[in-house]
Amino acid sequence: VADHQDCPLCRDLGGAVLFDDGRLRVVRVLPADDIDAARFPGFCRVIWNAHVKEMTDLAHGDRVHLMDVVFRVEAALRDTLNPVKINLASLGNMTPHVHWHVIPRYAADPAYPKPIWAVPAVPQLGTLQRDMSQENDMLAWSRAVTAALQR
Amino acid sequence: VADHQDCPLCRDLGGAVLFDDGRLRVVRVLPADDIDAARFPGFCRVIWNAHVKEMTDLAHGDRVHLMDVVFRVEAALRDTLNPVKINLASLGNMTPHVHWHVIPRYAADPAYPKPIWAVPAVPQLGTLQRDMSQENDMLAWSRAVTAALQR
Repeated sequence: VADHQDCPLCRDLGGAVLFDDGRLRVVRVLPADDIDAARFPGFCRVIWNAHVKEMTDLAHGDRVHLMDVVFRVEAALRDTLNPVKINLASLGNMTPHVHWHVIPRYAADPAYPKPIWAVPAVPQLGTLQRDMSQENDMLAWSRAVTAALQR
Repeated sequence: VADHQDCPLCRDLGGAVLFDDGRLRVVRVLPADDIDAARFPGFCRVIWNAHVKEMTDLAHGDRVHLMDVVFRVEAALRDTLNPVKINLASLGNMTPHVHWHVIPRYAADPAYPKPIWAVPAVPQLGTLQRDMSQENDMLAWSRAVTAALQR
């Protein structure tokens, strides 16, 4: 499958890569790239490396492998962050290149208990400073998730 | 796993059952039950029959089986409705009982290309009448999806 020049997930990695096995990559969404990463710390995406539109466009074995990694990310997020709930979604209306959102949710997050998309992001004064101060914690956490996925 | 008296997916079927194999059921969400069914015709849910919170709380074989059916529903919706995109999501913040939304999306639907949750439903005058006139079409479509899932 050829890369698509106008597809952001073909052009860019889409975050800090925690794991890549050639077929897919797991990224931590970065606050600098995506306002949702600042609102939902620990937000990860599992991205199929080739440009494929729907899950049912993947070969059966590839689909099973992708879901296995999605659930391994869910497990790693539960183990390391202890969220109230995990949200999983493959939407792709804007970016029709298979990718899964794996989002740890908390009672105190900006949208709970609604879906994160139900509450539009409003950039707040001071958000960037707070994000920067959290980055050291997030780097340690990233290493723990990578270790879990490599097991 | 015991049923939970306060869980709507333990108490009710959650729609018109298209398929049930004992472990899980596939339902068509009904406009009478859920405003989103009126906005997004063909909206289905795959509901694990037992009250389980997260995908990673399921045994591996159950998880694989559930996803296999989710993707069979995706395939049936693509075959019968030819949507622009399929949206898949397991959120469960309000109802922490494993269920998958399988949503056919169209360029002309009320939220496209945003996630359906980004555009709040506004009940419109005449919606119910229109839904009722569509129900014959939807019943024929339901039978086609059931046949596809039983294959």
